[in-house]
Amino acid sequence: MQLPNHGANPEHLVRSLHLSQSENTIDFSVNTNPFPLQNHIIANWNQYIESISKYPDPSSEQFIEFLSTKENVQRNQLLLGNGAAQLIYLLAMYFQKKKVAILEPTFSEYREACVAFGCDIEGIIMGHPWELNKEKLVKRCQQKDVLFICNPNNPTGVSYPPEDLIHVIQKLSSYNVTVIIDEAFFDFQEHGTTLIQLVNQYDNLIILRSLTKMYGLAGLRLGFMAANETVIASVSKLQHPWSINGLAQQIGLECLQDDVHVRNTQEFMKNERLRLFPLLEELGYEVSNSQVNYYLLKEKDKKEDCLALIKFLIVNGIIPRHTYNFVSLQGQYIRLAIKTTEENNYLLNVLRRWRETC
Amino acid sequence: MQLPNHGANPEHLVRSLHLSQSENTIDFSVNTNPFPLQNHIIANWNQYIESISKYPDPSSEQFIEFLSTKENVQRNQLLLGNGAAQLIYLLAMYFQKKKVAILEPTFSEYREACVAFGCDIEGIIMGHPWELNKEKLVKRCQQKDVLFICNPNNPTGVSYPPEDLIHVIQKLSSYNVTVIIDEAFFDFQEHGTTLIQLVNQYDNLIILRSLTKMYGLAGLRLGFMAANETVIASVSKLQHPWSINGLAQQIGLECLQDDVHVRNTQEFMKNERLRLFPLLEELGYEVSNSQVNYYLLKEKDKKEDCLALIKFLIVNGIIPRHTYNFVSLQGQYIRLAIKTTEENNYLLNVLRRWRETC
Repeated sequence: MQLPNHGANPEHLVRSLHLSQSENTIDFSVNTNPFPLQNHIIANWNQYIESISKYPDPSSEQFIEFLSTKENVQRNQLLLGNGAAQLIYLLAMYFQKKKVAILEPTFSEYREACVAFGCDIEGIIMGHPWELNKEKLVKRCQQKDVLFICNPNNPTGVSYPPEDLIHVIQKLSSYNVTVIIDEAFFDFQEHGTTLIQLVNQYDNLIILRSLTKMYGLAGLRLGFMAANETVIASVSKLQHPWSINGLAQQIGLECLQDDVHVRNTQEFMKNERLRLFPLLEELGYEVSNSQVNYYLLKEKDKKEDCLALIKFLIVNGIIPRHTYNFVSLQGQYIRLAIKTTEENNYLLNVLRRWRETC
Repeated sequence: MQLPNHGANPEHLVRSLHLSQSENTIDFSVNTNPFPLQNHIIANWNQYIESISKYPDPSSEQFIEFLSTKENVQRNQLLLGNGAAQLIYLLAMYFQKKKVAILEPTFSEYREACVAFGCDIEGIIMGHPWELNKEKLVKRCQQKDVLFICNPNNPTGVSYPPEDLIHVIQKLSSYNVTVIIDEAFFDFQEHGTTLIQLVNQYDNLIILRSLTKMYGLAGLRLGFMAANETVIASVSKLQHPWSINGLAQQIGLECLQDDVHVRNTQEFMKNERLRLFPLLEELGYEVSNSQVNYYLLKEKDKKEDCLALIKFLIVNGIIPRHTYNFVSLQGQYIRLAIKTTEENNYLLNVLRRWRETC
């Protein structure tokens, strides 16, 4: 059985399990905003057609200018990417063959990228409930060159205290260990804290961000990184020209200006978490302490993997994200996105039926 | 004076020369199709909005399937790129620190990419009229690992005889030298020959292609490479996931099916070359033997660089491509695109005035 490495690829998952996809399938494996396309994009859609034929600005000047003001970091401390995924690969290339630590379980692309570039990788595994143990982390990383942390973490949704992260960055700075913090989902939290401005203070800090998830631009690809200017200059030399397509630059810039969309999404997510999680617990499911728009789920009384549940969900029109390729989870959980209220209610019903059937 | 490294960036060029851009500037520095957006893209535009939010197929299955049939190479011999530029950088990465030869003057990104990845680079310079000397090339490359050839060449527009290229590939195969042929502009020639199917025969051949130029997708980014399956498998491991955005996959696939657009463009280019080149010669200009949609131009009686002419063109609303960063050209020529008949006539008039002024 060869399951797909990522979510958001329902046909592949269904095919690899030898099932057939039902007509009204809902994709709970994709963790982007369930309210993706903002009205102004739809309204302006006809104006974007010109961006297709015109070479994109290779230095994304206008976008970087705006971002610099919004995030309060200098322009030469910022680099855009063809999705955060490009930046992860550029960083793996930049740190090729170095000693890399990854705080697991987490997004599998840190490891994939580091394997591709011959890094010596050690996974530092957090046990349930996947909270950060700052002292243990510092101790385990002193001999490393790089540490990858995803915060809030994918797939758990757990968010780490900023003061703990700062402690780790500060301590590891004296051992010359670079800390890469991927904040791809930080803006789904209410009152979430970004550490981006600390790149002014810590030369060993690199922040990754994504516009793909909050603004629903997964098809366009857009992310950015912040770091000290030397790192940015070196990494940008490895990046191919015109990496950021013209449409992503134009639409991304408009999206960034829409704070209302972000606040509405944060509030919706908080309310849905508060509504859903107790109901799931009542049904006998264990749910991770997520602060964002997805969570891990398993049956409280089960120790084996979730394959039977996954198949039941698919047959009932729900595509979950398996966790077979998340280090230490080994398929014992599934990851589910928080979708619209109606879709979440449908999920609840199917999960209720599963418990009744068992 | 720091001129931009690429064409298609008029504002940057004008600014670096301390000039101001006139209102109706025509960009002759961009060498994409002057008839870019095909009618069906405009007609289908509203259907593409969904591609923005949906994760692109990471393996571009549908596109690869179509390409495989169209080009008659196997699916595992093909890899899509976020523009051919991404593939050039992936190849430089794959051949990092190796001994690379580049047939110059040519597209500057081969060198940029190889510098970024620590290759030992030697430029093999063709003199005017920039024709391929196959024996010299083979002799100079026997000790190399890789040879980059752009055919038809950018910026000269000169197309090399397929039998000469095959001779080079064959001879260098016995020295284990990989030959990378960038055919980004091959489809602008009438009766142009691609060597793509030879990847079945020669393990040391890599072909690069672009959809950016012919189909006017510079803003979307789309290119592909063909090579033996081992090279494709290794290079694709270095490529970040979701490199090819969803819109590029969808629109690119539709474009590839439109042979009429390609044939019309080829015929238009041939007719414009036949019309323009003798007129330019009459005015006292030397023009490269281009088979495509751009050409090099200089004044026959001038040996110094073209800076004065460049400024005159800009002041008169024409953006040329300087050649200061093309090895061996050192600014002695300018590169001009073949645009619409009306635009080409405007260029002719301005070039006539320049000769009268001098």
